[in-house]
Amino acid sequence: MHHVEQAIEYVHSRKQALIDSWLELVRVPSVSAQPEHAGDMAAAAQWLEQRLGRSGFDCRICDSGGHPAVFAGRCNLDGALTVLVYGHYDVQPPGDQRLWDSPPFKPAVRDGAVFGRGAADDKGQLLTAVAAVEAWQAVSGELPVNVKFLLEGEEEIGSPHLPSLVESHQNELACDVVLICDTAAFKPGVPAITYGTKGLVYKEVTLTGPAKDLHSGSFGGTVANPANVLAEVIASLKDADGRVTIPGFYDDVQPLGEAERASLAALRFDEVAYLAQLGSPALAGEPGCSTLERRWTRPTLDVNGLSAGYQGQGASTIIPARASAKISMRLVPRQDPEAVSASFNRVVRQVCGDRVRAQITEHGLCRPYMAPLDSPWMGAARRALAAGFGREPVLIREGGTLPILPVFKEVLGADCLLLGYCRPDCNAHGPNEFFHIEDFLAGAVTGVRLLAELAGLYGPTVRG
Amino acid sequence: MHHVEQAIEYVHSRKQALIDSWLELVRVPSVSAQPEHAGDMAAAAQWLEQRLGRSGFDCRICDSGGHPAVFAGRCNLDGALTVLVYGHYDVQPPGDQRLWDSPPFKPAVRDGAVFGRGAADDKGQLLTAVAAVEAWQAVSGELPVNVKFLLEGEEEIGSPHLPSLVESHQNELACDVVLICDTAAFKPGVPAITYGTKGLVYKEVTLTGPAKDLHSGSFGGTVANPANVLAEVIASLKDADGRVTIPGFYDDVQPLGEAERASLAALRFDEVAYLAQLGSPALAGEPGCSTLERRWTRPTLDVNGLSAGYQGQGASTIIPARASAKISMRLVPRQDPEAVSASFNRVVRQVCGDRVRAQITEHGLCRPYMAPLDSPWMGAARRALAAGFGREPVLIREGGTLPILPVFKEVLGADCLLLGYCRPDCNAHGPNEFFHIEDFLAGAVTGVRLLAELAGLYGPTVRG
Repeated sequence: MHHVEQAIEYVHSRKQALIDSWLELVRVPSVSAQPEHAGDMAAAAQWLEQRLGRSGFDCRICDSGGHPAVFAGRCNLDGALTVLVYGHYDVQPPGDQRLWDSPPFKPAVRDGAVFGRGAADDKGQLLTAVAAVEAWQAVSGELPVNVKFLLEGEEEIGSPHLPSLVESHQNELACDVVLICDTAAFKPGVPAITYGTKGLVYKEVTLTGPAKDLHSGSFGGTVANPANVLAEVIASLKDADGRVTIPGFYDDVQPLGEAERASLAALRFDEVAYLAQLGSPALAGEPGCSTLERRWTRPTLDVNGLSAGYQGQGASTIIPARASAKISMRLVPRQDPEAVSASFNRVVRQVCGDRVRAQITEHGLCRPYMAPLDSPWMGAARRALAAGFGREPVLIREGGTLPILPVFKEVLGADCLLLGYCRPDCNAHGPNEFFHIEDFLAGAVTGVRLLAELAGLYGPTVRG
Repeated sequence: MHHVEQAIEYVHSRKQALIDSWLELVRVPSVSAQPEHAGDMAAAAQWLEQRLGRSGFDCRICDSGGHPAVFAGRCNLDGALTVLVYGHYDVQPPGDQRLWDSPPFKPAVRDGAVFGRGAADDKGQLLTAVAAVEAWQAVSGELPVNVKFLLEGEEEIGSPHLPSLVESHQNELACDVVLICDTAAFKPGVPAITYGTKGLVYKEVTLTGPAKDLHSGSFGGTVANPANVLAEVIASLKDADGRVTIPGFYDDVQPLGEAERASLAALRFDEVAYLAQLGSPALAGEPGCSTLERRWTRPTLDVNGLSAGYQGQGASTIIPARASAKISMRLVPRQDPEAVSASFNRVVRQVCGDRVRAQITEHGLCRPYMAPLDSPWMGAARRALAAGFGREPVLIREGGTLPILPVFKEVLGADCLLLGYCRPDCNAHGPNEFFHIEDFLAGAVTGVRLLAELAGLYGPTVRG
């Protein structure tokens, strides 16, 4: 325990140096989506390689086939468990620079926060884990557990090379648990553990009828209109209550347990404030579920885009030759994306019949992820967050999809701990992204404590 | 009868002069949609004013508020009935000139036809009526009936000023029947009388939900998706058989009479060739009606355009803030556009409920038109066409909408005779528009004969 407290003290004593290096990394415009930043991608990867090398990690930069990934490991503790820290050093494009109060890649400190692109997502948050291992190294010359880092440069463009990278390096990346600091806190000062993310099936349906747009007067009523049929297809996918009607869709969905329902209710989610934030005229969705339950624990189906015929000003009287829709489904644990995808295709073709030609393209297929709530890792994470932030964390799910989580589970056999420190309104993909220094330090302390918890320095070892 | 045959002979004897003047008018690029052609619009109107003036008509160019209209009248026969010839001297834009085999405004004679923009629609067809009055004037110094001309310059842009022009000049335009040569023959060599056109209700429905596009993962399942609701709205407008479900929609639709059903069946419409022409995989529509019945005699509802969310390549996982559809309905006789419009709005608002905000814009509202089949004018027209083309005309309807027909009926109390001479594939709005000289001359002869028929020179006078 002595070393833990020393390490925590070390983090606080190094506050200015930690901020300085955080600003240094944010200054590198490592925008993965823009080819002109290739040199900056390499620079950010090298910066991390050198930084971790100074703490005794074996580091290398690994060619992923796209932007490089940084691999680092310090695994000299026989019999100790191994934590893999996953993060990403690439950032979103800054967008319109005029909307920033300070330049996105000239980070500024004000109001107790660092402002800049990547300040939180994910440079700031991943550096909390780096700060934690540095602190252990400084005060005891070793780490409580074996630690590996996998820091990629393509998260903001959908991690196209990461699954194959993990598969081809599964021995090098072998671990007991994965630590990811790339989600947000629940609200200011209330850190969160995200234990579930949704899966995804993304489809594009294109219906074609006549060879070219037809005059709706001269030819109306004699052949099917692809845009009308498309509306029929979409409407057939849900019933009047908003439940998805694709056969088998809910077969593998588990009803929400009493404990989890109570846990979500305890979050006292403010539906009025939420609705005001979104700006819709009403909340809506499956009956019998609270808004938060629908958002996090129920599968959904949404049209993401529609396109057909004349979209300009005023009127054009045509039967469009084609109509298309982008439709995505978010899946919850136990749902099988492959089965949902096949059933979706069958429904679409059945509704279309022989009236129009249907082409169905798949733009995404991803499993949901759910971390066990009763694992020793979860207990360790709760205690570490409570120590770092001075209050109990909340356990939440996320409606979005993190494709890498099921990959870690399936390829490495490891569950993920998603610890969120930055505020949910931190402008992660917008102008004026920020991360409070206080939360950054609490995150670093959480990291210090988590390594100790995982090593069994408090209570029974998690190895059971 | 002597004068009728002289007038017909006169038409044939003047063939080359008629073609020359036809080419002269086609050379004037009177494109109503393009402001740079304002001078050409005036030139075409003046050309027609002078031409009719030479046949003893009182002519004037009338400011419509937009492009000018040509008014002409020769009404010196007390007790004789009055025919109003309606036509238009404006033309569609030529489009891509590279698709034309000869320049659109340098008309060429080949394969027995005149090729050029407006060769048929409507310069060529309106000139058949001019040739007919000229022939009567030349051989007898007078016309068999009183004749007026109303030649407008805005038909191709929707005749925005014509209804008010007719209303404000109803005494000047007073007539017993309106002759319009602006439709097509049924097929080559088979002239047609079009006795019915459909009405129109054109709507744009815009649904808005969240204030801006939302992440479909983070927020899906909690508020209504405007694009999903739009699909529901559209799908709710028709049943599984393709019948429109808007309350009251069919209340005023008359069942097809046995005589008309037999008349349509006698046309021996080639459904296989029609389907091949359109390129759709199948014919479709209300059960219990033939394809031609659906096309001409049944009301329809078609989506003309759809727009929502992400329409680019690949995937974007958003709940769109807005979704919109352009939806038009074609109405058949007795249906009331105002009532249909109001019922449509009620259905849309009912399906939307309070989940989304609905804005409904109207882009068009027009009554259907149906000429009585047993009128004396109809008999006169049938006989005239039979004489002009050497075979019985067929009686057809049109699925499209001619807004001016109900205006003539309601304001002037006059029915319309729609006589079509040019071929249905004459490329009226496309490249290489043409009109066969043989059909042009047959049309002029039809006009000569029609004036005689209307004057009662054959059989009992149509005045009864």
